[in-house]
Amino acid sequence: MSKTSQPLRSVTWPEGLRLQSGALLQPITLAYETYGALNKDHSNVILIEHALSGDSHVARHGPEDREGWWDSAVGSGKAFDTDRYFVVCSNVLGGCKGSTGPASLDPKTGQPYALNFPVVTVSDMVNAQRMLMDHLGIASLFCVTGGSLGGMQALQWAVSYPDRVRNAIVLASTARVSPQTIALNEVARQAIYADPSWRHGDYYGAEPPNRGLAVARMIGHISYLCETSMHEKFGRRLQERAKYGYHFATDFAVESYLRYRGQSFTQRFDANSFLYITKAIDYFDMAEGLPSLAHAFSGMAARALVVSYSSDWLFPPSQSRELVRAMLKRDVDAAYVEIQSNYGHDAFLIETDRLASLTRDFLSAHRARQPAAAGAS
Amino acid sequence: MSKTSQPLRSVTWPEGLRLQSGALLQPITLAYETYGALNKDHSNVILIEHALSGDSHVARHGPEDREGWWDSAVGSGKAFDTDRYFVVCSNVLGGCKGSTGPASLDPKTGQPYALNFPVVTVSDMVNAQRMLMDHLGIASLFCVTGGSLGGMQALQWAVSYPDRVRNAIVLASTARVSPQTIALNEVARQAIYADPSWRHGDYYGAEPPNRGLAVARMIGHISYLCETSMHEKFGRRLQERAKYGYHFATDFAVESYLRYRGQSFTQRFDANSFLYITKAIDYFDMAEGLPSLAHAFSGMAARALVVSYSSDWLFPPSQSRELVRAMLKRDVDAAYVEIQSNYGHDAFLIETDRLASLTRDFLSAHRARQPAAAGAS
Repeated sequence: MSKTSQPLRSVTWPEGLRLQSGALLQPITLAYETYGALNKDHSNVILIEHALSGDSHVARHGPEDREGWWDSAVGSGKAFDTDRYFVVCSNVLGGCKGSTGPASLDPKTGQPYALNFPVVTVSDMVNAQRMLMDHLGIASLFCVTGGSLGGMQALQWAVSYPDRVRNAIVLASTARVSPQTIALNEVARQAIYADPSWRHGDYYGAEPPNRGLAVARMIGHISYLCETSMHEKFGRRLQERAKYGYHFATDFAVESYLRYRGQSFTQRFDANSFLYITKAIDYFDMAEGLPSLAHAFSGMAARALVVSYSSDWLFPPSQSRELVRAMLKRDVDAAYVEIQSNYGHDAFLIETDRLASLTRDFLSAHRARQPAAAGAS
Repeated sequence: MSKTSQPLRSVTWPEGLRLQSGALLQPITLAYETYGALNKDHSNVILIEHALSGDSHVARHGPEDREGWWDSAVGSGKAFDTDRYFVVCSNVLGGCKGSTGPASLDPKTGQPYALNFPVVTVSDMVNAQRMLMDHLGIASLFCVTGGSLGGMQALQWAVSYPDRVRNAIVLASTARVSPQTIALNEVARQAIYADPSWRHGDYYGAEPPNRGLAVARMIGHISYLCETSMHEKFGRRLQERAKYGYHFATDFAVESYLRYRGQSFTQRFDANSFLYITKAIDYFDMAEGLPSLAHAFSGMAARALVVSYSSDWLFPPSQSRELVRAMLKRDVDAAYVEIQSNYGHDAFLIETDRLASLTRDFLSAHRARQPAAAGAS
């Protein structure tokens, strides 16, 4: 039940994928989009990973030149320059934008999986993308990047496939999801469970749990902003009135914003996908089963640029610093930048001018270093 | 529909109260409790104001010696010493613990008010309490205190009735509620609205909107904790399992905590009261209609002790500092203390040892200064 009406490129693997849980998901499909041209030696690939609510359309696309979710960062002359790089972006496994997810048909029953869809992890998302890279004939990624959940996937790529990643740019993310984030995700899921239309996930072909999904999305939006951005954007400004209304209709501009964001999200997203993707986020912990976080990076070969945003309280700078310290303990070539910003977690989508210069410096330093590194080895 | 089964003392005013909105609420009842003994000149009264989910039972009470919501701070030898002070606490107007609220019967219809209950403000809550003080023969409060919404009421008392308040102790609170807090309250309300059992408030005698109210309360609990307290209390610890479950039942301890807190709240609180009290919080802005916040304190005579908690992100220290700066501009005798704590907003309920020494110093300094002040005037 994809709510997108755009034409999608996709590839299907009938043999499916063995998941981290042990379950076999068969078949699997990934929807993807590409921008720019692959060069002769396939050395100019940038794989961009999307966050919770994204899709494969990272930049302008299609005959109608529709907006992408990161137009400010991806395109001709931008941070990820499509004149120079071959940019690939795919919808995550478990998503609702063309890749296999809970709304897909279960071949065993001919009905949508709903909650029979197996729980997927960030590692599973990355393993599916690895199959996509094989399909596209891409042996090595010049760079993998993303913010939030996208940053987790970028990290997982660098650790799962050290010989296939040369650079990783990790934005507004974390190496292990905190209990506060788990708490926010759990309450958002509870809002969906509480909607009787959810029917334990079995709502396809009927009324979807839009009220619950809208509340879930509103909880998310609170965590994407910060006190400063809310002050600047809304303050205590009233919405279309001069005085308090003394009723429960919208009084404040911030209420109006949240209601609108919650409502509009239900027009483009599947509630069950929201459950599965937030669960994948909660499970993300690179230190899981290891003596320390540093152990996760023992085999990592890629250079890393880790970027945090000062007002991001969902994945705060402290978590990025923890990540970088762990990398440095294992001699990963890691750089860390904290960008001063008042946009909270959303900053990774907004502060793209600063990101453009950082990215250019980071990726061109790589290019310059190559001969020296070869000579030294 | 009070969900409490304890005997309550209360007083009813048939003439009712004219509200800030202009509406007349008639009659009104306040439930209240007292502790300790009133001295001869009635100069030892401490009025304690409760927060969103509190009631009049601030300390141990009744034949069964039941727990109060602030036992650690109120009692013999404690921060608010009932051997010395006459402590009064009343349930707020709009509440569901014995005072008039949306579950009370509307005399016009003989049915519960539900959403016909008028919107009340912090100022209305305080005006009703002023009637209670008159009823008890208390002309002047030695001290008014409270945390969070309780702190807002304490501030409002000092400003609305400058000749009746000698000291105000304001904990974990603010002089004007921020858009972030409005946003959290609005999403919590949306969770209640989204529950079909809510029926636009008309659920008395039927199934109450417990699923919505539970989600609303979970959102609150996230804002009462902080990243550090969540790390210390839960971390990524799993609940009664050694490995990820790969399903949507409870995996993490923090999920279990929130579910329990949400569920148990529905056993003791009325969803409509939650709507009205959060709305009163959102409307709280001492600068409303004034050229600046400082103007609010022009006539304030009480001494003030303002206490914030370092990890409180709901009402962060910056907001207490703004409040104190505004008071100092109007020569209010104000002291400010930021307590280092890892308990987030909940700290005002927990860090009562530190509070006890602060309170003792602050209130005894008042006593010592009295003669000198009298001589100087």
